[in-house]
Amino acid sequence: MIKKVLIANRGEIAVRIIRACREMGINTVAICSDIDKDALHAQLADETVCIGPMPSKDSYLRMDRILSATLATGADAIHPGFGFLSENSKFADLCSKCNITFIGPSAEVIDRMGNKSEARKTMMEAGVPVVPGTKEPIFTAEDGKKIADEMGYPVMIKASAGGGGKGMRIVQTEEEFLHHFETASQEAKNSFGDDTMYIEKYIPKARHIEFQILADNYGNVVHLGERDCSIQRRHQKMIEEAPSFVINEELRKTMGETAIKAAKAAGYCNAGTIEFILDQDNNFYFIEMNTRIQVEHGVTEMVTGIDLIREQIKIAGGEKLSFTQEDIEIKGHSIECRINAENPSKNFMPSPGVVSSLHMPGGNGVRIDSALYTGYRIPAAYDSLIVKLMVHDATRELAIQKMRGVLGELVIEGIDTNIDFQYQIINHEDYIKGKTDTGFVERMLSEKEA
Amino acid sequence: MIKKVLIANRGEIAVRIIRACREMGINTVAICSDIDKDALHAQLADETVCIGPMPSKDSYLRMDRILSATLATGADAIHPGFGFLSENSKFADLCSKCNITFIGPSAEVIDRMGNKSEARKTMMEAGVPVVPGTKEPIFTAEDGKKIADEMGYPVMIKASAGGGGKGMRIVQTEEEFLHHFETASQEAKNSFGDDTMYIEKYIPKARHIEFQILADNYGNVVHLGERDCSIQRRHQKMIEEAPSFVINEELRKTMGETAIKAAKAAGYCNAGTIEFILDQDNNFYFIEMNTRIQVEHGVTEMVTGIDLIREQIKIAGGEKLSFTQEDIEIKGHSIECRINAENPSKNFMPSPGVVSSLHMPGGNGVRIDSALYTGYRIPAAYDSLIVKLMVHDATRELAIQKMRGVLGELVIEGIDTNIDFQYQIINHEDYIKGKTDTGFVERMLSEKEA
Repeated sequence: MIKKVLIANRGEIAVRIIRACREMGINTVAICSDIDKDALHAQLADETVCIGPMPSKDSYLRMDRILSATLATGADAIHPGFGFLSENSKFADLCSKCNITFIGPSAEVIDRMGNKSEARKTMMEAGVPVVPGTKEPIFTAEDGKKIADEMGYPVMIKASAGGGGKGMRIVQTEEEFLHHFETASQEAKNSFGDDTMYIEKYIPKARHIEFQILADNYGNVVHLGERDCSIQRRHQKMIEEAPSFVINEELRKTMGETAIKAAKAAGYCNAGTIEFILDQDNNFYFIEMNTRIQVEHGVTEMVTGIDLIREQIKIAGGEKLSFTQEDIEIKGHSIECRINAENPSKNFMPSPGVVSSLHMPGGNGVRIDSALYTGYRIPAAYDSLIVKLMVHDATRELAIQKMRGVLGELVIEGIDTNIDFQYQIINHEDYIKGKTDTGFVERMLSEKEA
Repeated sequence: MIKKVLIANRGEIAVRIIRACREMGINTVAICSDIDKDALHAQLADETVCIGPMPSKDSYLRMDRILSATLATGADAIHPGFGFLSENSKFADLCSKCNITFIGPSAEVIDRMGNKSEARKTMMEAGVPVVPGTKEPIFTAEDGKKIADEMGYPVMIKASAGGGGKGMRIVQTEEEFLHHFETASQEAKNSFGDDTMYIEKYIPKARHIEFQILADNYGNVVHLGERDCSIQRRHQKMIEEAPSFVINEELRKTMGETAIKAAKAAGYCNAGTIEFILDQDNNFYFIEMNTRIQVEHGVTEMVTGIDLIREQIKIAGGEKLSFTQEDIEIKGHSIECRINAENPSKNFMPSPGVVSSLHMPGGNGVRIDSALYTGYRIPAAYDSLIVKLMVHDATRELAIQKMRGVLGELVIEGIDTNIDFQYQIINHEDYIKGKTDTGFVERMLSEKEA
């Protein structure tokens, strides 16, 4: 049994984890950088340790200091949240060497799925459909171009170590290839310190559909249905919903079973996500597995009634899953809008600063995950996600109506946000009709410019 | 179909109704008194009409002005919320004469259930168990005493027109009777303009258990399970939960069927509540029917997934219930804490004033119904209820843990509140063990004094 958890993260996900621990009677230790001393997560935890200055490399990414803080406070487990060290196998390995439970899969599994071209290989071997593309990693632009020319354009260049849309480029024509390959691999090198690339056939008008997986240490693996995350800008998700507008019971069953097969092929344990793209003919292809909790996990919680963070902690503590696939029921429809501190009219430039006034909506079927408070200074140093607005209702139509109201009621002053932009999406005819794919936001933006 | 609703109320219930209308695509008209112009409900509605000065008798109780505002704005229905005119049969009657849909039962039914001694009679005739007591109304203290002496003490004196604990007294001994009868009937006269009284046998260590009813115009009547509202101070509910700790499936079935029988005997239509007391041997007795939505309706919504305000509007609009008794499933456990602007250490004296700082908790399974915002001035003129904190989780134990955290996170500065007092209840051993009855809070208060 886990008794004390150190949360190796900040912001709303740290708050989310602290709350889950509290509900389980588990003590919490927060870590913070010097500028985060007044952050909500640092205030809510039972104990807080300041582990270094603002730049993440000197605090939230400092494995040595985080492990020291864990040992010094007597915590027996670390929850990494998402981002930062959550998919760092070395960190998971160090935890295990220090006899600290890492709330997530083993270092070995993180490695297996973290290298995107390796993961593709594992999936192909397991019979999970992957996007047609390279079987081996690519190291030079010339090798890449030869393969792309054979495959036929458009193609997608991706970084093996990639994540969060970094190191990704769509190449429409042969002429563009070398330029895009170079910028993508440069970005990959800067972001991940690894410029190994791979190439996939680009599938137009595709949807991003992901399946939530829970797997315990006893070979039990279940899926909790899908999330449709097709509303993205530059490969960054903006709106997620569960279930997907286009997935019927039969397709859910097929994709869900494939997701379980994928998780088993990975030797997976704990909460994870199998990401697929779904083309217009309902063909689906594995793109990657995220070996951590996702930002958008809440929409799954709202339609299933299962608390994913608590499940993560229970699994890490050695408990068996208390339910089977048959027990999981998808009820109603849930939507999440990510509210970011950014200015959509200035190319979504981040907008840090002091929240001078704040009014959160509430009511039936409304969930807000946030670390904001009035007077809080949003630092420039971190991610611009500040509020996860979630709604749940009986149908997609009602959930959209509810989200419209909630976006209308939310007031955040002192900084720029994307609230109005989200409102425009929610009110867009194509969105309402479910005619969305990963190109929706870019098309909407060009419509506005025209 | 209802297209535009005037909400004849204020505060959080008005906000709750505006949100429900918005979700249904129905336009809203708020009314407000002069000091409520900046109130949240007045800001959120599509239109707002100021109908008079602060005292309720000059605004929220002015039927003529409310009806004029309805006709002037072209609203086709009125939602009365709770309190104010919600159980005023004359108002319901006037609405119908003006061709305005009153979202609630008919004037006739309101009258039948509004007169508490009449309601007792109706129930006795229908075979619904009632607390042993007088069959006819009592007009003099001497008549009352004779009956009480025969019945044996303790007895409960109640006002026929009563509600909200007004005009109620427990009489422990013969000697106290005349004094209590006089103060109770005086209070009844002041509160309701009617000092008709009745007497019931007082049942010690009883629980307050109420059943939520929905009835349409086509003879369909269902119950949505019970709420346990035993945590009361001076007959005012403080904490409500669903389901009740002491009610098993069998007792729920029996009581639920009795509640449906009671609603049918009343000729009931729309949302209503059958209130019972439950003694320590699981005998239950009808005490009254509330012919309106209750403050605590949200806990039922959280365990059933049914939106009661939307159902009220649909029923009033002539729709059939879209579900049967078999479709209704009670899932998990929900608790509500009423947060009041009051000072528990000064005998719960109301504490109006400006909310200088506000921080609302959030997260998974947390619902907040409130009309507060930072800078809002809580008027002295109205009810002191300012926030309804609700949580929902898989079990009562988890819901209590969650509520503990939520109460800990909630910050309201500038006024006094009962947040700490609620925290003490939630952490009280007897509350956690479910050893509660309507005398719990008074016992806790005397423990603290001792």
